[in-house]
Amino acid sequence: MSQTNKRSVKVFSPATVANVACGFDVIGLALEGTGDEMELHLSDKPGVRITSIEGADLPLEASQNVAGVALMALLQEYGKPEIGIEMSIKKNIHPGSGIGSSAASAAGAVAGGNMLLDNYFSPDALIRFAMEGERLACGTPHADNVAPAILGGFTLVRSYQPLDVIKLHTPQDLWVTVIHPQIEVKTSDARGILKQQVLLKDAIRQWGNVGALVAGLYTEDYGLISRALEDVIVEPIRSILIPAFHDLKIRCKEAGALGGGISGSGPSVFMLSKGEDNARAVAAMMENIYAPLGVDYKIYVSRIGNSGVKAINI
Amino acid sequence: MSQTNKRSVKVFSPATVANVACGFDVIGLALEGTGDEMELHLSDKPGVRITSIEGADLPLEASQNVAGVALMALLQEYGKPEIGIEMSIKKNIHPGSGIGSSAASAAGAVAGGNMLLDNYFSPDALIRFAMEGERLACGTPHADNVAPAILGGFTLVRSYQPLDVIKLHTPQDLWVTVIHPQIEVKTSDARGILKQQVLLKDAIRQWGNVGALVAGLYTEDYGLISRALEDVIVEPIRSILIPAFHDLKIRCKEAGALGGGISGSGPSVFMLSKGEDNARAVAAMMENIYAPLGVDYKIYVSRIGNSGVKAINI
Repeated sequence: MSQTNKRSVKVFSPATVANVACGFDVIGLALEGTGDEMELHLSDKPGVRITSIEGADLPLEASQNVAGVALMALLQEYGKPEIGIEMSIKKNIHPGSGIGSSAASAAGAVAGGNMLLDNYFSPDALIRFAMEGERLACGTPHADNVAPAILGGFTLVRSYQPLDVIKLHTPQDLWVTVIHPQIEVKTSDARGILKQQVLLKDAIRQWGNVGALVAGLYTEDYGLISRALEDVIVEPIRSILIPAFHDLKIRCKEAGALGGGISGSGPSVFMLSKGEDNARAVAAMMENIYAPLGVDYKIYVSRIGNSGVKAINI
Repeated sequence: MSQTNKRSVKVFSPATVANVACGFDVIGLALEGTGDEMELHLSDKPGVRITSIEGADLPLEASQNVAGVALMALLQEYGKPEIGIEMSIKKNIHPGSGIGSSAASAAGAVAGGNMLLDNYFSPDALIRFAMEGERLACGTPHADNVAPAILGGFTLVRSYQPLDVIKLHTPQDLWVTVIHPQIEVKTSDARGILKQQVLLKDAIRQWGNVGALVAGLYTEDYGLISRALEDVIVEPIRSILIPAFHDLKIRCKEAGALGGGISGSGPSVFMLSKGEDNARAVAAMMENIYAPLGVDYKIYVSRIGNSGVKAINI
């Protein structure tokens, strides 16, 4: 058996929230406690092979799988055609949940693959490869979820051409509560209802809030974070797709949340809180609101994780 | 002579740049070396009196003068009708220059007045009073210039209702070079040519840049500040009112500027630089470009001042 056959890694790749309120299309964050687990092994057989997928019905064929496609992009740029990687995936994030299911798989694949290649690539390159998974998943190679999945914490995508992603400071005691109502909202539908033009005065209010949110993160000013968590552009339109959205927002804030909004393109809704107790009180409030609705749902409570994909024990 | 008659203060009130690139209508900054000087004295004669104005032809009648109106708003809220303040103003900032001439006078008046009242009011209240000066000057009580004039450094106006102004972190070695072409651009004209609607994709790019600029300020990442100094919404429209604007931008960056844009509603143009040497090289480049144009101009070079209005020796 060759030396390379022995090299293996197991990684945890976090769930993520994209479109953090005012930060539509630019600000995302990573969860600490929820994510996919993946094992990757260097192999003498060239190319990418997915040996098993647990927890979701997704294609094993690498070229049809977001994790496979992302890892193929990495290997192609690595430029040694003799290298092969085998991968097994344990999905803990339900596809379509709005907390970056495809991004977690794509990010875990490329970050894990990079560990097997002695961290040959920079985080920026990994984001670029993982975006190829997003291209397969939704038609657009966006970085909203793969950036926080790879870098951890809060991230800002300043620009795509060239790709310019900034890892922001993440306050230690910031938690997120996410409710995933198990109804289907297609990303394409959620995008289709947006208007291509917006009022300048609304746009100004939005970028004032984005600046304030970033300032609040750096200064760990939870009050400022709370005031800045406002989306006057997208939320008023998309929230109609989500059952009880306004009730959720108002009552979760009464229960102690700093604020929140739609996670990604929905249907999940996230709320940020200072501290675990508040985050759990928000979860209880979400249950109170959703239990009588007759809609299945799942609730996640997690600190904002400051590390992205990380190696865990096999 | 009563005790109060003796109490006097002299203040320096800085010039300011509003609409810092992507931060249109929300981000401003204060200069350290350029500003108005004002002397204020408590008086037994109730009300506000302006005893002299040097350097500009402006009304002495308090109710017609931005500094007077701002100070009257402060005294009214103070609620002791027997109090009077006399004020003399030395204008070093040319009205209409686009670097906050009216704001400097209004800010200096209320901050100086507050010193005479043992700092009774918070900085937020002072901003609110100074905005009354702006209402007189241009019809709208905006905070774009009075906020940095009072707080110093970089400021962000997150919201007007309620007023929410944040002082951002200012990197130590950040300098600004401003050229004031002595042509008239009326604020009302500059505002009139803006479109009320903008493309969502442009707005997203703008708020990505705002977030990045704020992050760059907190992390003192001059490269990031440079990349974020982009305005895809207002500058493409307003820059047509300013002679040689695109030449200025390109060649000042070649000369070492991080980037820049239109100061306020123009006609001044500002460029940020790391360090005094770069800021002076940028000034020389501005001269090179403007000298052949046959337009009078004035150039200011200053560190970004971290203090706003401050007491100086009488």
